[in-house]
Amino acid sequence: MVDVAVIGVGQTRFGNLHDMGRKELFSEAFWEALGDIPRGLDPREIEEAYIGTMETGGGQLGNIAALMVEQVQLSHIPARRIENACASSGFAFRDAYLAIKSGQRKIVLAGGLEKMTDLTRERNRYWLGVSGDVEWERLAGTNFPGIYAMIALRHMHDYGTTREQIAGVAVKNHRNGAKNPKAQLRFEIPLQRVVEGPMLAYPLTIFDSCPTTDGASVAILCRGDMAKGFTDHPVYVIGSGAATDFLAIQDRESITTLTAADRAAEQAYSEAGVGPKDIDVAEVHDCFTIAELLAYESLGFAKRGEGGRLIEEGTTQIDGRIPVNPSGGLKAKGHPIGATGTGQVYEIVHQLRGDVVERERQVRDARIGLAHNVGGSGGTAVVHIFRA
Amino acid sequence: MVDVAVIGVGQTRFGNLHDMGRKELFSEAFWEALGDIPRGLDPREIEEAYIGTMETGGGQLGNIAALMVEQVQLSHIPARRIENACASSGFAFRDAYLAIKSGQRKIVLAGGLEKMTDLTRERNRYWLGVSGDVEWERLAGTNFPGIYAMIALRHMHDYGTTREQIAGVAVKNHRNGAKNPKAQLRFEIPLQRVVEGPMLAYPLTIFDSCPTTDGASVAILCRGDMAKGFTDHPVYVIGSGAATDFLAIQDRESITTLTAADRAAEQAYSEAGVGPKDIDVAEVHDCFTIAELLAYESLGFAKRGEGGRLIEEGTTQIDGRIPVNPSGGLKAKGHPIGATGTGQVYEIVHQLRGDVVERERQVRDARIGLAHNVGGSGGTAVVHIFRA
Repeated sequence: MVDVAVIGVGQTRFGNLHDMGRKELFSEAFWEALGDIPRGLDPREIEEAYIGTMETGGGQLGNIAALMVEQVQLSHIPARRIENACASSGFAFRDAYLAIKSGQRKIVLAGGLEKMTDLTRERNRYWLGVSGDVEWERLAGTNFPGIYAMIALRHMHDYGTTREQIAGVAVKNHRNGAKNPKAQLRFEIPLQRVVEGPMLAYPLTIFDSCPTTDGASVAILCRGDMAKGFTDHPVYVIGSGAATDFLAIQDRESITTLTAADRAAEQAYSEAGVGPKDIDVAEVHDCFTIAELLAYESLGFAKRGEGGRLIEEGTTQIDGRIPVNPSGGLKAKGHPIGATGTGQVYEIVHQLRGDVVERERQVRDARIGLAHNVGGSGGTAVVHIFRA
Repeated sequence: MVDVAVIGVGQTRFGNLHDMGRKELFSEAFWEALGDIPRGLDPREIEEAYIGTMETGGGQLGNIAALMVEQVQLSHIPARRIENACASSGFAFRDAYLAIKSGQRKIVLAGGLEKMTDLTRERNRYWLGVSGDVEWERLAGTNFPGIYAMIALRHMHDYGTTREQIAGVAVKNHRNGAKNPKAQLRFEIPLQRVVEGPMLAYPLTIFDSCPTTDGASVAILCRGDMAKGFTDHPVYVIGSGAATDFLAIQDRESITTLTAADRAAEQAYSEAGVGPKDIDVAEVHDCFTIAELLAYESLGFAKRGEGGRLIEEGTTQIDGRIPVNPSGGLKAKGHPIGATGTGQVYEIVHQLRGDVVERERQVRDARIGLAHNVGGSGGTAVVHIFRA
């Protein structure tokens, strides 16, 4: 069986990058990833590319994977766009991983990009909303804030989760994001401000939600047995899991469980031969604060219903037992849809190498890391586990 | 190295299927594919899905891969949408192939779908047009008929290709499509009518172009060593190649060569250990008549510039030396963008099994087949080679 390693990662700053289009975003992430490989890589050695993106300029841009590789002088290599809503580049990473596992490819690119700030607020609300079940959710009048608000209320009702535990996710992630120069929302936020912020959908306020973001990210993967030729510090991909679920939450067994994420985690742990207790650092999909608590439960960091406790006990802070979202997460780092999955990989790779520039964000002695990326309100999910 | 086989294929009729939406189209193709496996398959054994589609109801439907697997009771398996314009499901098939090669998956679904007839003519023109280079082609005023017309004129100028040779592709493919009950344009067409038809872009008339089509197609792949457990007649995938090119034709080395297709073919032949002379039957991407001549040249069926001769000499007719597009091709069978790639696989699998229902379309003693799928005007291309 072929092993797979990540040898270089790159990521733009996430934010309102009004002076950059898709080509500039992708290029910047690509060239950073290439420059991140200590002993260098001739880009012509990259054999295949998997690129996640959801929105294409109101449908203005087709064949976008080919357009992106053309832009970074990789023209001619096979490339395809992967689109699974917010999990697009998490799946792109999985498929790049499988391409190397297949023995057909030695060096492969996985990446993602999104340009959200050049669209109106209404347009963004529209195209994001379609990642749930259009017939049974959107046309019935709900949207993602509404769906996650229902999940939050039910979680509070069934398990006694408190509003403060949920809001505490924002406090923690903003604390991390404030120290990350690539994050979009680089400020701390007090608990009270989260709870009393402008209401999105009760009980979630605007400070429970991730922002609208531009950005791109790239990871370069290679056969494990070649990795040491490029770097003394490859990060190995030791597990990959993915799944889908009913799009409409009313079709699911439970509205407080993202079963797709449970299953993706189960597969990834099983392949990696590790369990939740072995994870030293994780990046999880906190599109809304409540989603981070669901992630704790899917990933086995907490028992079902007990995610809130980890926040209360500080378990997932930078200096806690399982630091989660040291980057600031989607909440504070930002959520450029198609760029989020490989953006999580970018963070985990730096954490496992121990070379996070801002030392106060560096998790100490992290050896095993995890990335958890969700599409829609759990219609798709993908989990990867990494080892330094 | 793991071998890969196709054990079942399904395809809707291609055409203006006004009474079917995306879910119905995909379901019909899926259940036909499942029923096509002689010794049966419990759908729960399917482990992963790759689904190609380009347009999503004017952006109305997100997470569409999850939505499709949910629809056919495969909920929970990992699924992703692959979007590479007209080559979407060709790439979905490639990725399904790599997933099995990886040793991580035993049984995988590749499929595609498109619903084009519920959009206005203007809207179709718009979203198809973006698969070329938007900045350098579409905004300059050209579209696909314009681009292929330029290619045709240049091919005629450089190589002496005649208008009649080009139009002969339509005559041949309509002759085949007329006998295919799943084809959209089931009528023969005389050469003169093609040449004198309503002008699209000189020299191409409307009869040089594929139609606007609804449809879906599905192929079920498995590990080669398991295939005989499902069927006495598996069709093995012996080569897969893919590539990209500059989107804008003015950036390319030659406007009469689809370099992406050349490279995809080269890889596929090399992996399969066969050459153009070994191909007994091929389905190629004839979105416009001229494109089929380019395909002959990319695939090595003819020398560069000499594609027209194969039409003149009848080489690619059903009873010729290398029958091409026995299904009717995109030209007459129809071209539901995302469904075309695995739709070609559907045809080749039946041809290699020798079980084409309409015996006058059955190529005799076909043992090795090829499918050639192009995205845009050659920005992406993918080629697969099959053996009975």
